[in-house]
Amino acid sequence: MIQTDIAIIGAGPVGLFAVFEAGLLKMRCHLIDYLPQIGGQLSEIYPKKPIYDIPGYPSVLAQELIDNLKEQIQPFHPSFTLGERIETLEKRGEADFLLKTNMGTEIEAKAVVIAGGLGCFEPRKPAVEGLDEFENGKGVNYMILEPEHFRNKRMVLAGGGDSALDWTIHLANIAERVTLVHRSESFRGAPDSVNKVMQLAEEGKIDLILNTNLTQVHGNGHLHSVSMQDAKTKEEQTIETDYLIPLFGLSPKLGPIEGWNLNIDKNAIEVNTEDYSTNIQGIWAIGDINTYKNKLKLILCGFHEAALMSHSVYKYINPGVKYTMKYTTVNGIAEF
Amino acid sequence: MIQTDIAIIGAGPVGLFAVFEAGLLKMRCHLIDYLPQIGGQLSEIYPKKPIYDIPGYPSVLAQELIDNLKEQIQPFHPSFTLGERIETLEKRGEADFLLKTNMGTEIEAKAVVIAGGLGCFEPRKPAVEGLDEFENGKGVNYMILEPEHFRNKRMVLAGGGDSALDWTIHLANIAERVTLVHRSESFRGAPDSVNKVMQLAEEGKIDLILNTNLTQVHGNGHLHSVSMQDAKTKEEQTIETDYLIPLFGLSPKLGPIEGWNLNIDKNAIEVNTEDYSTNIQGIWAIGDINTYKNKLKLILCGFHEAALMSHSVYKYINPGVKYTMKYTTVNGIAEF
Repeated sequence: MIQTDIAIIGAGPVGLFAVFEAGLLKMRCHLIDYLPQIGGQLSEIYPKKPIYDIPGYPSVLAQELIDNLKEQIQPFHPSFTLGERIETLEKRGEADFLLKTNMGTEIEAKAVVIAGGLGCFEPRKPAVEGLDEFENGKGVNYMILEPEHFRNKRMVLAGGGDSALDWTIHLANIAERVTLVHRSESFRGAPDSVNKVMQLAEEGKIDLILNTNLTQVHGNGHLHSVSMQDAKTKEEQTIETDYLIPLFGLSPKLGPIEGWNLNIDKNAIEVNTEDYSTNIQGIWAIGDINTYKNKLKLILCGFHEAALMSHSVYKYINPGVKYTMKYTTVNGIAEF
Repeated sequence: MIQTDIAIIGAGPVGLFAVFEAGLLKMRCHLIDYLPQIGGQLSEIYPKKPIYDIPGYPSVLAQELIDNLKEQIQPFHPSFTLGERIETLEKRGEADFLLKTNMGTEIEAKAVVIAGGLGCFEPRKPAVEGLDEFENGKGVNYMILEPEHFRNKRMVLAGGGDSALDWTIHLANIAERVTLVHRSESFRGAPDSVNKVMQLAEEGKIDLILNTNLTQVHGNGHLHSVSMQDAKTKEEQTIETDYLIPLFGLSPKLGPIEGWNLNIDKNAIEVNTEDYSTNIQGIWAIGDINTYKNKLKLILCGFHEAALMSHSVYKYINPGVKYTMKYTTVNGIAEF
């Protein structure tokens, strides 16, 4: 049985930083994440992409930010349960929670902080028969972790949002050939990215196939070609390719959290902005998974929420104990 | 006449980052600061001190953080009026402000954001006659900008808080001799720092004079010695020294802001946490200068406030215009 002050569900940037703010207040944290590594979406979906809106970083790669946060919380020695998902949460007595994962791991905590990002999200898949046959390393991927993996390969990307546009631009110089297939004529992404993709197509650096839906995948053990149909003319064509990357976005699923009697609004947990507490005493929610008036789903907002949450949890765990905030610039970090 | 979308009063870290968040929404900013350089307290008071609680920075020097923020906002080309203080603020018509500085500079803005930190703060000075005679480079300083300036000098530090303890520890290895004078027997600073100072005194590396008040300063053009009296025995002693550094903290003054009819609570401006707006339409307040329930005076909280404020100002300046937030990771930064 793992025992801790705060069980943090989610080990993305906000969950990680919460360890720091809790640590300044001498509270120990245990983090649980369904992904096999820390970092949340940043490490799982876009580790090599630059982020421009982390205050103080003109630009930082997603994985670099996670690595820095990991170093920052090191003095407070957080513990982790990775690759497991909290299935049940039971409030016992006055101020004790028992959490159990899908693998049977049990965690006892005085407080629970949900920093679950967009939840356990799954890629949206196109309705193409036999697609799953080529998943898991056989030619069909739903996210791009390492662009270099596709150097000198033929790729069909599908989708019309920023992710599809973005990766088309990025991979144009890496892959042997990029074909972008989109079911409509207009894109949902940033105008600037749309222009760039159009320009790449005009210059013959990529192939752009609009008004077209994927229909079939072919191969023998590994993907070999993709068939598609023009939505208007109904003409079919088949393109030989090494990879098919459908980029239709991620479908966030709150998962077991939905069953915990928290107030939920559009897949997010409603919180009190005074301290980011939920409707259940002893449970807080911070980062992209919470919602309140004017909420912005920005990492930097989650950092602030982690700070206010930590002070609130401190008061909850230590009722009546007066605490004077100390500045790290004055006092440094007291490791424990 | 300077014209801008947002006049930001205060060019500390939070005011600077506000330029970035406003810039993402295509709003131009002009910043005004009474200090002669950007960076607020960080550049003025502790440029060489490490900060440990900026998310993603295990440690960053105060000036380094400011330099990074300066680089981060460069794409949005903010303009500055430095070394001047806004004296008057006049609301003209529906959505226009006219601001005037003590030097007569005029700024016209659609919105005003007060990011004034602790205001125009001044060092608290001990009641010692003739102290001002040695200010301005003649031996009496109220803050330490460059520790190296004191290498191999004799110094008397006075005070009992973290600043006095901290600098005593830091300067023990730099100055020829550090004497710390404190009027009481107990310190208000961090226990850890108190222990270190006590240890340095035991090891003979510094002189510690407790229960003692400064009484006189002597010199001819430059400080030469300091007299002090034991609070109990009333015995006097005089110590030869090159520098006297009274570190009794800073006394924050809101200054002219107090006359602008804003709701003020304990030297801070009350704001609505939904968007950090003040009681006057068109004026927002972010960072250490604002107050609300559970407010933490942390730079990282000011960053969050800057983000929510910017979206609120955007709606105010562009009524009825629908805006979809774009992520920098997806769209990058559109310079203007």
